Amino acid sequence: MDISTDFMRRIAHAAAAETLPRFRSQGAVANKEAGSFDPVTEADREAERAIRALISSEYPEHGILGEEHGSQNLTSRHVWVIDPIDGTRAFISGIPVWGTLVGLTVDGDAVAGMMSQPFTGELFYANASGSHYEGPGGPRRLATRKTTELAQATLFTTTPALFKGDARKRYDQFETKVQLARYGTDCYAFAMLAAGSVDIVTDPGLKPYDIVALIPIIEKAGGVITTFEGGPAENGGDILAAATPELHAAAMAALRD
Amino acid sequence: MDISTDFMRRIAHAAAAETLPRFRSQGAVANKEAGSFDPVTEADREAERAIRALISSEYPEHGILGEEHGSQNLTSRHVWVIDPIDGTRAFISGIPVWGTLVGLTVDGDAVAGMMSQPFTGELFYANASGSHYEGPGGPRRLATRKTTELAQATLFTTTPALFKGDARKRYDQFETKVQLARYGTDCYAFAMLAAGSVDIVTDPGLKPYDIVALIPIIEKAGGVITTFEGGPAENGGDILAAATPELHAAAMAALRD
Repeated sequence: MDISTDFMRRIAHAAAAETLPRFRSQGAVANKEAGSFDPVTEADREAERAIRALISSEYPEHGILGEEHGSQNLTSRHVWVIDPIDGTRAFISGIPVWGTLVGLTVDGDAVAGMMSQPFTGELFYANASGSHYEGPGGPRRLATRKTTELAQATLFTTTPALFKGDARKRYDQFETKVQLARYGTDCYAFAMLAAGSVDIVTDPGLKPYDIVALIPIIEKAGGVITTFEGGPAENGGDILAAATPELHAAAMAALRD
Repeated sequence: MDISTDFMRRIAHAAAAETLPRFRSQGAVANKEAGSFDPVTEADREAERAIRALISSEYPEHGILGEEHGSQNLTSRHVWVIDPIDGTRAFISGIPVWGTLVGLTVDGDAVAGMMSQPFTGELFYANASGSHYEGPGGPRRLATRKTTELAQATLFTTTPALFKGDARKRYDQFETKVQLARYGTDCYAFAMLAAGSVDIVTDPGLKPYDIVALIPIIEKAGGVITTFEGGPAENGGDILAAATPELHAAAMAALRD
């Protein structure tokens, strides 16, 4: 089972039709969880609806797990995992580092996935043919950088504030060991890791829909992505991605020590 | 004295010819300051050279203050202030939130300025005709949001780590009072404030070339931008920008208390 490049382009196009007209439109922002600020726009809900319609039409027997509209048929061997807008905070702030994430798992393993950013016109995707980019500058294969040492590495995380207690202390220590640390880019940083511009990305407490689509993009570009304990990333949790196995091992040791 | 929109487009175009081909090209990265990681790419130096050539040809008697190639004729009433790539860390990480900043001061007051982002094809600029945007979605006037309360505000800063000692404690307190805080966007966050997508941007320790170009873009869009003490932002320092005078006063009180 694979996803064709054409089908991923169709998903990206259908999602963009719902997200892009609402980006920077100051549209209605709803609170997803009462008492905390977790914005979900109309764009989020409508984009997931459009993506689900495409999948259900093409693969009616497959399962779907989405951020906005729940799950269906999760006992299928094939399950699609959808985050219509990863980085809703970037979206409502007008910053084009959010993305539409769609991945496919077979027997729990992520085998194909895509991240599209319609404002920049970019599509990062992986299927049986490897890990690829389409966008400004033309299409190309994605490949991670060959960085093996923390002291040479560029690190991204959404915000250190997501690390709590001892995990925060370990993160702060870890940050002192890398060359450069940057915050606030959600899925875009994982795409840049696959593209060879960033060396390490870590985020604690991710949901499956935050990460499944990105796993094949990173792995097929030469990177390594697991939980902090080295387990599979497909179920979410505390996630660590790195450009090389050596760098991943060094980062995992630092985050676990 | 004003800058024509056409001249700003020419500057953006000339800078893009030097920056864009080198973006994500894994080009040589030099260290600007020995012992710390402050990357400056070839793109930075060549873009400033191209911008200076345009200015010197059009306004030979004006002064120029640039990040890369120093200053000339600063005793002129008219001084251009240039940062060819604001957000070099974003640039080397492949994240399209860096920008080319060019501003004009007359007798020390910023009267016109531009921020261009060539990967997204965006130009934010202000001159005697007001504050404007050109890019995907078409041209429009820039206007700040009407937010007056910290509890309703979206806040951006490059990283809290730039606040030291007591200033860090005040910043951390301040962050608890706003609705949403995000990090890591350099000049792009200031542009989004002018565009009405972000309410407060603060960064300590800025240089004049980090901020002069952005002052007229924010002020002519309805925003307020000063130092933490309420003084003019043209000389850099600890900078606070906000969408409305009321919000600026509330933020300044929080950052100074």
